[in-house]
Amino acid sequence: MKSADVVVIGGSAAGAVAAVSCRRRYEGKSVLVIRKEGQVQVPCGIPYIFGTLGSVEKNVIPDALLQNNGVEIVKEEVLEVNREKKTVLLSGGESVGYDKLVMATGSLPITVPIPGADKENVFAINKDANYLKSMLGEINVAQDIVIIGGGFIGVEFADECRKNHACNVTIVEILPHCLQMAMDEEFCIEAESLLPELGVKVCCNQRVETILGDRKVTGVRLSDGRELKADVVIMGVGAIPNIAMAAKAGLQTGKTKAIMVDRYMRTVTDQDIFACGDCAEKVSFFSGSPSAVMLASVATAEARTVGANLFVTRQQNGGEIGVFSTMVGGRAFACAGLTEKAARQEGYDVVVGEAVATDTHPGGMPGAVSTKVKLVFSRGTGILLGGGISGGKSAGEMINVVSACIQHKMTFDEVALFQMGTHPALTASPIAYQIVNAAELAAKAA
Amino acid sequence: MKSADVVVIGGSAAGAVAAVSCRRRYEGKSVLVIRKEGQVQVPCGIPYIFGTLGSVEKNVIPDALLQNNGVEIVKEEVLEVNREKKTVLLSGGESVGYDKLVMATGSLPITVPIPGADKENVFAINKDANYLKSMLGEINVAQDIVIIGGGFIGVEFADECRKNHACNVTIVEILPHCLQMAMDEEFCIEAESLLPELGVKVCCNQRVETILGDRKVTGVRLSDGRELKADVVIMGVGAIPNIAMAAKAGLQTGKTKAIMVDRYMRTVTDQDIFACGDCAEKVSFFSGSPSAVMLASVATAEARTVGANLFVTRQQNGGEIGVFSTMVGGRAFACAGLTEKAARQEGYDVVVGEAVATDTHPGGMPGAVSTKVKLVFSRGTGILLGGGISGGKSAGEMINVVSACIQHKMTFDEVALFQMGTHPALTASPIAYQIVNAAELAAKAA
Repeated sequence: MKSADVVVIGGSAAGAVAAVSCRRRYEGKSVLVIRKEGQVQVPCGIPYIFGTLGSVEKNVIPDALLQNNGVEIVKEEVLEVNREKKTVLLSGGESVGYDKLVMATGSLPITVPIPGADKENVFAINKDANYLKSMLGEINVAQDIVIIGGGFIGVEFADECRKNHACNVTIVEILPHCLQMAMDEEFCIEAESLLPELGVKVCCNQRVETILGDRKVTGVRLSDGRELKADVVIMGVGAIPNIAMAAKAGLQTGKTKAIMVDRYMRTVTDQDIFACGDCAEKVSFFSGSPSAVMLASVATAEARTVGANLFVTRQQNGGEIGVFSTMVGGRAFACAGLTEKAARQEGYDVVVGEAVATDTHPGGMPGAVSTKVKLVFSRGTGILLGGGISGGKSAGEMINVVSACIQHKMTFDEVALFQMGTHPALTASPIAYQIVNAAELAAKAA
Repeated sequence: MKSADVVVIGGSAAGAVAAVSCRRRYEGKSVLVIRKEGQVQVPCGIPYIFGTLGSVEKNVIPDALLQNNGVEIVKEEVLEVNREKKTVLLSGGESVGYDKLVMATGSLPITVPIPGADKENVFAINKDANYLKSMLGEINVAQDIVIIGGGFIGVEFADECRKNHACNVTIVEILPHCLQMAMDEEFCIEAESLLPELGVKVCCNQRVETILGDRKVTGVRLSDGRELKADVVIMGVGAIPNIAMAAKAGLQTGKTKAIMVDRYMRTVTDQDIFACGDCAEKVSFFSGSPSAVMLASVATAEARTVGANLFVTRQQNGGEIGVFSTMVGGRAFACAGLTEKAARQEGYDVVVGEAVATDTHPGGMPGAVSTKVKLVFSRGTGILLGGGISGGKSAGEMINVVSACIQHKMTFDEVALFQMGTHPALTASPIAYQIVNAAELAAKAA
């Protein structure tokens, strides 16, 4: 019987990183990744297939990463995990023995149970390459696209779908604003204001009641009775943990219906089985409560923890901070930790600091983009709870500076003295650098 | 007699920020900035005047910052500080009383005592607007420019001087490589390799022995006997603290010939006088020893400490990490903390991790730039000592993530679990994100 010291089920971000990290941490151990996909899609790259990239083939996680690190790949489906025998049964009939098993089975897109959701050309955000290819074919010739859900994925799809051909794109969002689950209202309003320029219509406070058409979708009916034409409908309303295999194997799941793990990413049910990524239950960095937020960057951090802890307990998962970034019409939006609204809901008395400056300096540098940083602190302790940024592309890394400050529970006084580097072509000026100014203004307001 | 609660001498980055921070921290206090300049130049923007910006007027720190924060500006020279009477004497004859005084007199460019250094068209990097205007006039019509010193300023000048007109530019550097004081050799070599494509020649291991010409410079003679034609010579060899006024007032200076201050940026000589920026002595974050590195971003962090501590001791200066970034031929180079070489010189047994990935993902995203991160850790403790980056423009903020990790003495295991956000158009992939991969590889190597 084939066997490996470590068997990883799933080859997307979490599975691949767990495998590589294990090889880095335990050089002598053999690692086998079992996945059903021939090639694995970059999960966060999926919206970009439909515009910037233009093809499914350009959105592939290269297998070289696994091969260069001595990880074996088996491209089959896993039918069953036998915890007593410590084997997994493959679709080809073979069994593979393991010493340690890693569940990295990811998530499945939520399909909203709307009447008509089973019609042709109603797509969910499925990570399967063939599914995405047929979706691309339909989107490329679509005249009227309706996107259900104005979260990051929905907004990114809306922006991308129009890049390669003219079409009508409408986002239908149930909340008052797009992106509202992740960002404070002022950022949502700013991002939304850019969508009409991109030719994207937004219907907020609306629900799709019915998907219209015969065999194939022809439109949707909204909760206010309006009908929108549609030859393609995209459901971008989130994902649920893919835990069928884990459930079959008797692994306990938690409040978010994900596999329950301890602080070391070991399943609470079986000491030889670990879980990471979208299929593993997360806890909030702030409250310690279960969190349903799924992010590839969190999945990979968890996977690195798994890789380190498989044979020796080395690292502890500190809980999910939640760092998001996106682009809307060429402008970057990013956030980390708690929004002002979420912080208040969590019972914090917050103090906020905001600073705006160009992302290069002086302001007359060509291409300078006004960039705003908002930081949210706890009034009592002065500790940083979260931040939001809108502006130039460097916001994608600026939010990681904010994340580092959150992770270290820095206070506004400490953030105000943060030693950043600055350069005319790369950052705001040292005088105006937004993160430290926002912190100093919060200290003033406290 | 005119008076203010706080008088700041000097209106560049340090002076302006100390004034604004004081107003933010102590709303009721009156603050007066005394400076001799009509308009203040952005110090790190100076090389960009000669190419990208094209004019001295576009490189001005706006006075609005001071005005909007209720800071009064007096545009005169200070002749004398009378510590007994707690007054400063202005060039116009007026005296101004203070409760607290802030010395932010900055630095003066080093003029190397080379024979012929007093000839016309031999320029130092002076921050005076009129001086820079005449320098711009000469550079704009120069055929042959020799730059003495291949540090950041020298390399930036070389890159910029050729942007608006064709001319021959040669850097003469005394060390084996350009940028060697700040970056490890491999980054220096990479940056140097880009210079010929920009039409810039580099003569390393060379000293300018004589500056040739009659009244006006016509060339330079190098230590190997070669002569280079030059109608403009630029000396970019560093700066020394401007402490004439402080010395006259009897303020003690330290090993780097800068004003000695305590951990709270108060001068050791006079409890009512603070100092910050290039004129104030710095200590290394790592060793606590005096450091002669001058950076606007350090100056502003010190100035914020001064602003906070003027009337109540609130904040401690943790010592200089030293975070640099620059652009060479459109590629960003950045570093923070100790280089591998400097760490070894300081007596550390180092362990290094390196990771390369594109700055967007997947690699096929248009405009993706291969970006390398090198992290240097102490073997015994695993604590991060420094990092270097070369690659896309987001390196300017990535190095600030590294700085935050240094500031918190994070180990390779902690950096490997850092919760960054990622996005296809803004960062490397969560799998390949360079900072965490470099940390994990260092953990492997340790």
